[in-house]
Amino acid sequence: MLQQFFSPSVQHTLDLVGIFVFAISGALLAVRKNFDVFGIAVLAEVTALGGGLFRDLVIGAVPPAAFTDLGYFLTPLLAALLVFFLHPHVERIQAGVNVFDAAGLGLFCVAGTTKAYEYGLSLTSSAVLGLATAVGGGVLRDVLANEVPSLLRWDRDLYAVPAIVGATMAVLCIRYDALTPLTSGFAAVTAFVLRLLAMRYHWRAPRAWNRRSTVREE
Amino acid sequence: MLQQFFSPSVQHTLDLVGIFVFAISGALLAVRKNFDVFGIAVLAEVTALGGGLFRDLVIGAVPPAAFTDLGYFLTPLLAALLVFFLHPHVERIQAGVNVFDAAGLGLFCVAGTTKAYEYGLSLTSSAVLGLATAVGGGVLRDVLANEVPSLLRWDRDLYAVPAIVGATMAVLCIRYDALTPLTSGFAAVTAFVLRLLAMRYHWRAPRAWNRRSTVREE
Amino acid sequence: MLQQFFSPSVQHTLDLVGIFVFAISGALLAVRKNFDVFGIAVLAEVTALGGGLFRDLVIGAVPPAAFTDLGYFLTPLLAALLVFFLHPHVERIQAGVNVFDAAGLGLFCVAGTTKAYEYGLSLTSSAVLGLATAVGGGVLRDVLANEVPSLLRWDRDLYAVPAIVGATMAVLCIRYDALTPLTSGFAAVTAFVLRLLAMRYHWRAPRAWNRRSTVREE
Repeated sequence: MLQQFFSPSVQHTLDLVGIFVFAISGALLAVRKNFDVFGIAVLAEVTALGGGLFRDLVIGAVPPAAFTDLGYFLTPLLAALLVFFLHPHVERIQAGVNVFDAAGLGLFCVAGTTKAYEYGLSLTSSAVLGLATAVGGGVLRDVLANEVPSLLRWDRDLYAVPAIVGATMAVLCIRYDALTPLTSGFAAVTAFVLRLLAMRYHWRAPRAWNRRSTVREE
Repeated sequence: MLQQFFSPSVQHTLDLVGIFVFAISGALLAVRKNFDVFGIAVLAEVTALGGGLFRDLVIGAVPPAAFTDLGYFLTPLLAALLVFFLHPHVERIQAGVNVFDAAGLGLFCVAGTTKAYEYGLSLTSSAVLGLATAVGGGVLRDVLANEVPSLLRWDRDLYAVPAIVGATMAVLCIRYDALTPLTSGFAAVTAFVLRLLAMRYHWRAPRAWNRRSTVREE
Repeated sequence: MLQQFFSPSVQHTLDLVGIFVFAISGALLAVRKNFDVFGIAVLAEVTALGGGLFRDLVIGAVPPAAFTDLGYFLTPLLAALLVFFLHPHVERIQAGVNVFDAAGLGLFCVAGTTKAYEYGLSLTSSAVLGLATAVGGGVLRDVLANEVPSLLRWDRDLYAVPAIVGATMAVLCIRYDALTPLTSGFAAVTAFVLRLLAMRYHWRAPRAWNRRSTVREE
């Protein structure tokens, strides 16, 4: 339906890069939560593949890519293994990980949007599903670790907005028949850079208007 | 398969009303948990659409209605916006919200049951899925907010029973070929009224028989 | 595709046994968490059927078996009822429950793997999905109860490894065309015995290599 906007092998490599960096973030959380080696592997898999799995179930692309492409399954295991042995070093390079995670966010919001549109969803729904693809794995990671998803917390730097911008740019390109490797790459890079800026300058989203401290905290 | 028991526009309006009031309850919890504006929007969407999304995945109705009807997606955003700006007032009218939430419960348990039956499930399975449609969004809301689902807690007024009664009435109507706007409306209203009574008189379900305090609490 | 490796009624009975014992573990956790009777029933259903439901959604077997076979739905209710009235006795026989749970683990990892392969997944993906079938219900149980999944915790006896071994043996049987009642039964029994040994000797998986106590705990 859409012209393939990257050559398959380039697209696949980018997917694996996104999966790898998301898996690193899951494995690191597992180490911090004191999980064992299987907990580390499970959290790496869920973080890396959860968003795409949800997207594929919603659009009816079963079995989901996570279960048809061996590389999608093995890449998070590799990430888990690296973190298992090298986690002090990995933690030291947290800044680097954040950069890769931002790259994954940019890649996944565009790729998720495009795949959803290819399966017949409307432009708006495609963008929403692209957003869900990009942030879904992280939400599952935090739920399994029994923490409030960092996506929802006010004291975290902006994460949703860059993905929303990237997904919106992707559907605008589709809408105006301008989806090319260049434009979709530009959308992914924009999301990536926005996330980097949000981390650099600690951009945060507002909480509810005029929220008083007398409101009960739980 | 079944005669359309409401005119499409009436049914659609009722669906949107149910989605709206469920979204309000999600957005209010997000404000109480101190989430930012995106957290409020996400929790509103999940609460309003989660139950129906689960139902549609189970019956194979993909892409789910939540992703094909723009109104389903925009209504929770409107609810989130209202709560974002007006939450002190919204909290003051918690009683009113509870009434609407009860109405949503009634509508969703009947609509969920009917849709499941239309997709070929047995009567019992349809009722179970109708129940899941009605309560699923609230369970997801509580899981994302990192709380024990209020559906499961003994110190909450009855919530499952009204939905079970409504779904059971709906399948009985289907079984005896008596599903009309009147009878299905009556089933929804019965669930609605039962939930109101449960809140008014603090009806609660029993905990395990003869549970001793020496059993370890966690 | 595969020869039916048990007669249907034997296979079905084994499925129901696995469902029953998993449901017991869910209901017991609900009692410990002080849930009401509906919470007990919901947790029993989710624990018993969650893993298979996930597998069926992934392979596109909709509606899932949990919604087409009445026995699958009623068995957890029976388990919930037993626990509701007899929980002090059930707790006293926790050792017995653990044995049955281990049997369920063995049965489900083999049955899940076989069903996934029948639906066209690769050998590796089938084994992964068999593992997910066996452990998925327990993870959902713990998430709903707002606890860290015991699958992930280092201070729990090995649970994933027996299921991995059973699933791997099942795919090796498929690969070498040797899947018979005998070999698949042997795979299930191996997983079962490994889990019993893990509990008996408190086998545990390692945590991250060289993890220092100075790493922040949360």
